[in-house]
Amino acid sequence: MPEQTPTEIFDLGNFQLSTGFTLPNAKLSYKTHGRLNATKDNAILFPHFLGGAPEALEIFIGEDRPLDPRKYFIILPGLFGNGVSSSPSNTAPPFDRGAFPQTNIADDVIAQQRLVTEKFGIDELYLVLGWSVGALQTYEWAVRFPHMVKRAASIAGAPKPSPWTRLWLHAVIEEPLTSDPAWNNGFYTDPLAVQGGLRRQGHGMALTLPPDGFYREGEEVWRSIGFASVEDFVSRFWEAFMLPQDPNNLITQARKTRAADPSAGGDIAVALRQIKAKMFVVAFTGDKMFPPEECKLDAERIPNAQYREVSSIGGHLTTFALTEQDRQAMDDVLQQVLTA
Amino acid sequence: MPEQTPTEIFDLGNFQLSTGFTLPNAKLSYKTHGRLNATKDNAILFPHFLGGAPEALEIFIGEDRPLDPRKYFIILPGLFGNGVSSSPSNTAPPFDRGAFPQTNIADDVIAQQRLVTEKFGIDELYLVLGWSVGALQTYEWAVRFPHMVKRAASIAGAPKPSPWTRLWLHAVIEEPLTSDPAWNNGFYTDPLAVQGGLRRQGHGMALTLPPDGFYREGEEVWRSIGFASVEDFVSRFWEAFMLPQDPNNLITQARKTRAADPSAGGDIAVALRQIKAKMFVVAFTGDKMFPPEECKLDAERIPNAQYREVSSIGGHLTTFALTEQDRQAMDDVLQQVLTA
Repeated sequence: MPEQTPTEIFDLGNFQLSTGFTLPNAKLSYKTHGRLNATKDNAILFPHFLGGAPEALEIFIGEDRPLDPRKYFIILPGLFGNGVSSSPSNTAPPFDRGAFPQTNIADDVIAQQRLVTEKFGIDELYLVLGWSVGALQTYEWAVRFPHMVKRAASIAGAPKPSPWTRLWLHAVIEEPLTSDPAWNNGFYTDPLAVQGGLRRQGHGMALTLPPDGFYREGEEVWRSIGFASVEDFVSRFWEAFMLPQDPNNLITQARKTRAADPSAGGDIAVALRQIKAKMFVVAFTGDKMFPPEECKLDAERIPNAQYREVSSIGGHLTTFALTEQDRQAMDDVLQQVLTA
Repeated sequence: MPEQTPTEIFDLGNFQLSTGFTLPNAKLSYKTHGRLNATKDNAILFPHFLGGAPEALEIFIGEDRPLDPRKYFIILPGLFGNGVSSSPSNTAPPFDRGAFPQTNIADDVIAQQRLVTEKFGIDELYLVLGWSVGALQTYEWAVRFPHMVKRAASIAGAPKPSPWTRLWLHAVIEEPLTSDPAWNNGFYTDPLAVQGGLRRQGHGMALTLPPDGFYREGEEVWRSIGFASVEDFVSRFWEAFMLPQDPNNLITQARKTRAADPSAGGDIAVALRQIKAKMFVVAFTGDKMFPPEECKLDAERIPNAQYREVSSIGGHLTTFALTEQDRQAMDDVLQQVLTA
């Protein structure tokens, strides 16, 4: 069995954020699978999504899986605000809880680049890939460090959130928490004091993330992924995903997602032309958050990018391989990316 | 200028609700345009939508409009819970505010039938039509009183809300209010004490009701209907729609919508076969709440129903005729209905 580390911490020291604050004793959490080879050219970086954790998509890692740790050294870094990396929930005053400074996706990627170079001495990554907010980090990597990214795969993502996605982050992630009677500007007594808000986030996600027709009578796709009713799906999938999370941590992740922009306020078309990676832009049929037609336009703005559309019943959730068909479709597209 | 009444009140007396309560001194608000002719065969009933009022869709009424008051006697009835008909906001204890009993769409239609027969002596309506929750009432009319409805038009509606629409009513209409710190089980000090919840409803509507692509960069449909930015559209269209409303009244309307079922728990296919009206099922392209593919299936279950799809940039909002093209498309379909 190849080496697999538990979650580890990379010390960033006093870390200068792009938002003008210095985060004292900043920490980047990460986990690895496999071994870095002698030529250091087998490293894959796989950042996680909003509300996720480094190990959130380990379903793609394993000896019989696309990301094979016998072949690749897979680094799973953790976002600032994920509760293990520096976050509102684990940072000392004055930056504790509701006073944690805004971090940007660019800050995450800069911290990840330090991990990759300082800790592991890697000059070039075989692949950077990510789903959703992981894809936003992938774009930031490909634009910011073009000579370090040999291959890149944005899976159901974009360089920047769309106007609809920005509305979504506000209405579905931020407002259910910030309007909760227990919120107290982020200085709640306990994360579960805000459980009403966390559950309402789950309800908003259940409403907006599955593709059209998912709930339709006669289709009822939730049945095929193991749920007994709509209410069962809302509770055991969505509420269960949100309830263990810390509200401030989620807000931190939502705000950095809203602000994501690899051009840093410049011309995104110019920024995307900097990309040197062999880039795959992967979209999911029926994805409301990153619709295929928008992903296709992104791909057209990147030199030599390839566009792939994965047809699925899961829409934005296809990544979770909730059906055997989705798992196969995801595996196939990852194989294409890895062998490009 | 033909006669046009201000909003009037029809006294229903002590009104037995389908939910097992008796509403004392129940009131049905309504407004009329035009005159009932001697043979009493020119009456059109046009119930309103969730959050609406009898006059909400008067854009279709006028001498140069499809519903011409020189020709038709147009009755615009108001839902229980609309703030003028018996509602949480205007009913005496013990049924005041948060203690108002649940009313069903069937109750509204029974009250409207009493208005039509007792007040006006009408045996058969030339047309019953409605948009969204107005369409739910139209279905209830056509099933419950099949011999009284000569023509019917469901505009972007359904006999019952879909599972997705039921989730929507809960997550977008009910929860932002019932979770508001000022909610107090519906015994808030003032409707505007709950303005945070009302605004969040508006945000949820802005997120979920416009069709795909409405906000997309390069499309930005909100521009074509007179808004300067997404934020301007969210504030001046959605928040402005919600803020004048009473929270308990909205909850009453949302709950009756969730429970709507012309078969009253029976077989909806059997119920729809009772319809005698010349029925038009009108769907709007891109409508997420009542998708054309679902409306088409409804039409197929109704004897001799005709299905029409109106192509528009507005999705569910097409009814508001926000563009000249939408106004023309709506007028055309209403002309087909009126002359059927």
